[in-house]
Amino acid sequence: MSGSIVPVILSGGSGTRLWPLSRAGKPKQLLAIAEAATMLQATAARAPQAAGFAAPMVVAGEGHLPHVEAQLAEAGIAPAAIILEPAGRNTAPAIALAAIEALAADPEALILVMPSDHVIRDPAAFRRAVATAAVAVRRGDLAAFGITPDRPETGYGYIELGDAIEGAPGVQRIARFVEKPDRATAEGYLATGRFAWNGGIFLFGARAYLDALAAHAPAVLDACSAAMAAAARSGAVVRPAADAFLSATNISVDYAVMEKAANACVVPVEMGWSDVGAWDALWDISAKDEAGNVVSGAVMALGAANSLLRHEGGPALFVSGVSDLVVVATADAVMITTRQSAQSVKDIVDRLKAAGSPLPN
Amino acid sequence: MSGSIVPVILSGGSGTRLWPLSRAGKPKQLLAIAEAATMLQATAARAPQAAGFAAPMVVAGEGHLPHVEAQLAEAGIAPAAIILEPAGRNTAPAIALAAIEALAADPEALILVMPSDHVIRDPAAFRRAVATAAVAVRRGDLAAFGITPDRPETGYGYIELGDAIEGAPGVQRIARFVEKPDRATAEGYLATGRFAWNGGIFLFGARAYLDALAAHAPAVLDACSAAMAAAARSGAVVRPAADAFLSATNISVDYAVMEKAANACVVPVEMGWSDVGAWDALWDISAKDEAGNVVSGAVMALGAANSLLRHEGGPALFVSGVSDLVVVATADAVMITTRQSAQSVKDIVDRLKAAGSPLPN
Repeated sequence: MSGSIVPVILSGGSGTRLWPLSRAGKPKQLLAIAEAATMLQATAARAPQAAGFAAPMVVAGEGHLPHVEAQLAEAGIAPAAIILEPAGRNTAPAIALAAIEALAADPEALILVMPSDHVIRDPAAFRRAVATAAVAVRRGDLAAFGITPDRPETGYGYIELGDAIEGAPGVQRIARFVEKPDRATAEGYLATGRFAWNGGIFLFGARAYLDALAAHAPAVLDACSAAMAAAARSGAVVRPAADAFLSATNISVDYAVMEKAANACVVPVEMGWSDVGAWDALWDISAKDEAGNVVSGAVMALGAANSLLRHEGGPALFVSGVSDLVVVATADAVMITTRQSAQSVKDIVDRLKAAGSPLPN
Repeated sequence: MSGSIVPVILSGGSGTRLWPLSRAGKPKQLLAIAEAATMLQATAARAPQAAGFAAPMVVAGEGHLPHVEAQLAEAGIAPAAIILEPAGRNTAPAIALAAIEALAADPEALILVMPSDHVIRDPAAFRRAVATAAVAVRRGDLAAFGITPDRPETGYGYIELGDAIEGAPGVQRIARFVEKPDRATAEGYLATGRFAWNGGIFLFGARAYLDALAAHAPAVLDACSAAMAAAARSGAVVRPAADAFLSATNISVDYAVMEKAANACVVPVEMGWSDVGAWDALWDISAKDEAGNVVSGAVMALGAANSLLRHEGGPALFVSGVSDLVVVATADAVMITTRQSAQSVKDIVDRLKAAGSPLPN
């Protein structure tokens, strides 16, 4: 079908801030963190064929292929392609592989680029935003989705909203991208109402994206074109040629294209978005009991408050008289921190990696 | 030897406030809680034959016999008797059994009654206090050791110190026993300097103790005499007759004898005593690292402060950014509480018992 919208699910991440649940071999997107489905499954379910989307593509690492195939099959999803990166080269090359693949099937294809490890509690709002963006994108623009902020978050980059675009209601030019701000700056952004979080979600014409790469990051396009031309194929699985792909610059789509392209635009959207960046974020978005606890698995909690208590293996947890705690227990590690310090889980993993411990895997 | 001092170690307890380390089948006194030796071993080592004490007697429950025998053997201690209570009947009957056993070997025997689950960091001070008490006890008095308080503790009973006793320096009459006070009362006690904690440690003439029972609790004496007359013996192990013993009143030595006897006296002593009543007490008496943590076993702690982190089994612990926490991990339970709430561990165990869980055992 000409002009199809192909979901492109970026599943290359291997974040460590949800350790010990997430591991290098089974990162966050392959886990059922916030709901019964895995985050990969939930991402695919957000842009289903039943709602008019084409079959999705997944860009992932070779090591995760068995999980990706099994999880898509479990969800009843037949992917158009599973593209295996020989190694991670950030988002600009990853998206280029998918754009090339999509173009081969449909010269008018749009690609809906979605990180695989975000939560969106209002997928209908997301799909409405996609429809909104499509009007501008079908005319050649490159659209980012800008998450309307609800707090002065210092952990995300922001997009300053620019002028409205005639004939594309709900779409605005991008005034500028800004890096993670300090607290005072973030509070200012929130107050103006003119800033949105950059959630890394995009709608592009596949052709327009490759054209933008040709203009702003030609080496990325050359590397990815060569890699796809020499790709090995097996069913839906596409293995771009490693030598060619590994020569691609490690660069994000923001730096490579969005910050430079004159045809970049943004669709502001409120859709209950979270990147579940750390355990405290999971507590934030989860349903809580009357004491403010998010409890799962073999846990006995007496007098606990505002805590995330998650048991997924190992001895049962018995918790008493604690507040604002995060406890995540697996068969081989029990991690205990506070909601305030939840980001420091990364430090534990760094320490383990430095010590050569097998636990990060 | 006539007039020997026989250590009588009361090992009948089965406290739950050091759960999940202490269990009904292996309570606190049978564990190495505060040092390399078990608390039973440390108690025996406090009154050794090398310091002129007779071989000790241990009063314990049948279920703990294998542990008691093994731990005494490991410490190179040949007990004069291991007296197995058919069931717990509190301290007055338990001490009566030992007094009867001691009298049979030495009509002039003194018995040094020691709970098996206390820490005394200055055993030399303890032995000096025993020598101090012995002067009065050999003249017929019944001596308690009164722990000089260092804080307005509301969890212990107090002894009000009375008049000095002529010819027995360091020994005083007991003005009165008082129950666990409220905070204001405890602060008043501390301020006067006339009150000591009742630590449940005593020095009696065995004959004088039985005479006092005859006067103040004759039914206890009758039951214990009958039980010992019909006891089954096997090596050092003495099994008093159950029918007779079980008819004894369940009563403490304080209620049965010390609060009533005109010849009760007290030796105030500072000896680094703790009953290690809960996990916070163990933190109090333990050596800490520069961040105030007491850490043992497979624990990685980053940015933890003033916490007790104890791993004795199960998955390793990874702790980050917490303060004033208590974590005790065993092969089948991970218990997490605060130093402030450490007493609430009892509530967990009560809940488990009510639910019929095997974990308390």
